[in-house]
Order: sequence, then C-alpha cells, then structure tokens
Amino acid sequence: MAVFTTVRTQVQSGFSETDAHLEELVKNLPGYLGMDHAQTPGGLGITVSYFRDADALRQWRTTAEHRAAQKRGRADWYESYTLHVAKVERSRGFTRP
Amino acid sequence: MAVFTTVRTQVQSGFSETDAHLEELVKNLPGYLGMDHAQTPGGLGITVSYFRDADALRQWRTTAEHRAAQKRGRADWYESYTLHVAKVERSRGFTRP
Repeated sequence: MAVFTTVRTQVQSGFSETDAHLEELVKNLPGYLGMDHAQTPGGLGITVSYFRDADALRQWRTTAEHRAAQKRGRADWYESYTLHVAKVERSRGFTRP
Repeated sequence: MAVFTTVRTQVQSGFSETDAHLEELVKNLPGYLGMDHAQTPGGLGITVSYFRDADALRQWRTTAEHRAAQKRGRADWYESYTLHVAKVERSRGFTRP
C-alpha cells in the first residue's frame, strides 16, 4: 500500500482534471486494487492506494503521466506531503449488521 | 503503521470525549511515533498511526480503555471500518522550500 498525506497550496489550477485523469489511468493498471481518500477541508488529505505487489506499485510510480503530475505537484499544488510505502501484514473490517 | 478508515453513524454521543482521551493515552505509550488524520465531512475518515514496532502496536491494541472504545465503536459510532496493519518499507516527504 502507499499512504500519501498532503497539505495543498492556494494554487490548485489543473489539479482536479489531473486527479481525475490519473484515477482513470490507475484503474486500468494490472495489480491496482483500489484506494481510500479523505480530505479535511482546508487541512490534511490522505490517500491510501492498494496494490497487489511491489511490481504493480513500481509500474504506477513510473507511469509517464503520473511522473509529470508528481513534478507539477511539487511545483504548484502541494505545500508539503509524505509518502509511506508499506507491506500490509493483516487486515480486518467491520460492517454494521 | 495502522491505517484505520471509518464511516460514522448518526450516533456520535461520547465520541469526541473518548477520542480526545485515547489521544492523550496513546501519546504516553512508549513506541508511539505520531498520527495523521483526515476527515471528509459526512464521508470517510482516515487515521494513520505510526508505531516503532509490532510490540508497541500490540500494547496499544490491548490497552483496556482502547478495547472498551473499540467495543463502543462497533455498538454505536461506526457504520463500517477497515483496519490495515502494515510494515513501512520506505518513506519520503516534501516541504515547499
């Protein structure tokens, strides 16, 4: 999994379009399993992306459009971010009966 | 790290107080390194907690007040949740110069 936390700048021109385009791209990547996203208004955003294995994540990291977006993110969109790549050891869930 | 995603119910009585109390408790736990939290209004919440090792996380998981809160969460506060326990393999960050 990749855990991406972000604080955005005031400069958000092009962000939504790029975000939507990247979401379409990653959905078609073999080994992509899904994502969870939460955004505190005016505060922290967290995106958790799930991949089958390190190879799938590497594919995504090096996709040309994704690379370009990363560069644009550092230039314009993000005040700060952290990225943690981690191997899931166990998972559980709950849904109200 | 522990990645906890939640969808809350309409029943939030006692949630804020318990949440604040647990945050005080975990801060005093040896091996606790911090947390990131984001909450989409009316939507998904994600809390990422960082621990030095599996032992520190186990300590936290089995703390009595935390156990009681987990039970209360399933009874009242959460419509659904997922918990992923993962081992961080690499991290990087960016801060605007």
